[in-house]
Amino acid sequence: MKYRGCQFVPETVSDIGELHLIKHIREIAGEPSAGVGIGDDAAVIDVGTETYLLATTDALADGVHFLTSQIPARSLGRKAIAVNLSDIAAMGGIPTSVLVSLALPASTPVEFVHELYRGMRHEADTHGATIVGGNITSTPGPIAITVTVLGSVSKSSLSLRTGAQIGDVLATTGTLGNAAAARLITERSRGWEERWGTFVSASQVPTPRLKAASALATVGIPHAMLDISDGLASEVRRIGEASGVGALLHSDSLPISEEVQQVSEELNLDPLDLALYGGEDYELLVALSRGSLHEAEALLAEEPLHVVGEVVPREVGFTLETDGKSTPLAAEGWTHF
Amino acid sequence: MKYRGCQFVPETVSDIGELHLIKHIREIAGEPSAGVGIGDDAAVIDVGTETYLLATTDALADGVHFLTSQIPARSLGRKAIAVNLSDIAAMGGIPTSVLVSLALPASTPVEFVHELYRGMRHEADTHGATIVGGNITSTPGPIAITVTVLGSVSKSSLSLRTGAQIGDVLATTGTLGNAAAARLITERSRGWEERWGTFVSASQVPTPRLKAASALATVGIPHAMLDISDGLASEVRRIGEASGVGALLHSDSLPISEEVQQVSEELNLDPLDLALYGGEDYELLVALSRGSLHEAEALLAEEPLHVVGEVVPREVGFTLETDGKSTPLAAEGWTHF
Repeated sequence: MKYRGCQFVPETVSDIGELHLIKHIREIAGEPSAGVGIGDDAAVIDVGTETYLLATTDALADGVHFLTSQIPARSLGRKAIAVNLSDIAAMGGIPTSVLVSLALPASTPVEFVHELYRGMRHEADTHGATIVGGNITSTPGPIAITVTVLGSVSKSSLSLRTGAQIGDVLATTGTLGNAAAARLITERSRGWEERWGTFVSASQVPTPRLKAASALATVGIPHAMLDISDGLASEVRRIGEASGVGALLHSDSLPISEEVQQVSEELNLDPLDLALYGGEDYELLVALSRGSLHEAEALLAEEPLHVVGEVVPREVGFTLETDGKSTPLAAEGWTHF
Repeated sequence: MKYRGCQFVPETVSDIGELHLIKHIREIAGEPSAGVGIGDDAAVIDVGTETYLLATTDALADGVHFLTSQIPARSLGRKAIAVNLSDIAAMGGIPTSVLVSLALPASTPVEFVHELYRGMRHEADTHGATIVGGNITSTPGPIAITVTVLGSVSKSSLSLRTGAQIGDVLATTGTLGNAAAARLITERSRGWEERWGTFVSASQVPTPRLKAASALATVGIPHAMLDISDGLASEVRRIGEASGVGALLHSDSLPISEEVQQVSEELNLDPLDLALYGGEDYELLVALSRGSLHEAEALLAEEPLHVVGEVVPREVGFTLETDGKSTPLAAEGWTHF
């Protein structure tokens, strides 16, 4: 509770923010016995076999995570599955089963639902997963798509975010800032379809890095791994805080595509901001020993790793090095409240 | 597509209804290889061990499934878990893990979220399940709670809705119509709190019949089993259509509590309508051989079974017998569009 002027107003979730709310919830929900609690990319469940069961859930709501006016229903379906597959990838796992919970306004066109499901089916099929169930409900609010993906990972391949070690390099797959650049160009530039239509379409559906993650995890390369859902800066902090270390990023090493640079120029933005704080890239962020870098690069010939920084002592904190000068890495990122 | 007046209007989900939409989705999503597809209470996943993995997901939205003004947050949390546990029960299984996806308006009081999670934790703990993960997102719409529950069932205990046989008796646990009576009294009667507060509180949180279901399933008694989420009439049809049979219900055998009778009198309703079409009871409906009835009753000494009807040939259809007269059972039930 807190006072606003003379009124006694209950504290709201936007007053305390997402991170505090999650902290409270973890305390109330308790720590699962498998030792990997709420907060990693996916929950890890010991079912008494040689593999752990993985389970992750993510929701996309119209007006918050997407705009039906700007993303085709089929791409949206693919995205809704892909962001969850990415969580399974980040644990070193393989996806198996998908559950879909849809909340639809009564006025939703049937063809939208069909296209959405075609996209979900396509994305699940592509990565060897099966849609096994779900439910549909009406809602007075916007369309919401909640997807749960189950997967499995051999106990020796499980990759958490807690194991980064001082001296490790930090590396990412793909390029960063694409999703943010695509979102901003559709919001801020008239006539973007003609110049940026192809780039936007390609950037709206992330590619879950299941093969790359699994290849690394199978040989035990990642000391820590997660997927970059909320921007590199946030995710580096997450690995650092979970592992009790700091991190140094090199701004001239961040993998930024030609398109992101051009969009940034057109919108008068710094492409570094998109790469660091943009969010929704769903690339992997891996902490690995410098000695295993060659092996990792050989394993991922088709999806090269980019070294973006290194793990440093906790006391150094989280910094960005640009032209030899270090500045503190802003704590920003995509938050929901 | 269809024409409304002179306008060309796309067909909406409310035009075709929930059942047709689910049929379309099943076609698009494809049939899972385990042979038990979308449509039973929970998905059945063969993970190569002696037990099947069960997975079910259900969403509750403010204004559709509950009103925050009428159910305490803690009860709502319990209910959100209980309705999913009930699906696991209906398969003959045991729940293990829970994932929670919350969509919250920014103005949601923090204390509401805490109470909600306390209720979810309580309900999960009570039935031996653990909250292992989830996610939170903001929404411009109403509060929505999507819960996924995982469970397991030994292959020999798996209870589907497809095995009802002609001559079987149909039996239910508990009493029917309580949830509907509680909902209607809060909507239609001023000052209900004083007279009906205790009944309403007790009826807002269903009791998942995990023990009863598991006791029956372990010895292979159910030919078909499901939980009554949308009213007995709907669920009898579901078992019948899945099993290729009809059903006859005896109206004087339906288990209706004293409170439901009193509420019905006060609201000038037929208590039979509440029992048959009310929904949200989450009691078990079991088809079992007449010969196994004694064994079943002995197993469930604390949660007695009530014989409510019998399985008849498909040609007879779905009928209700009252004072020796048969009338067709209405196809109604709780639908979402």
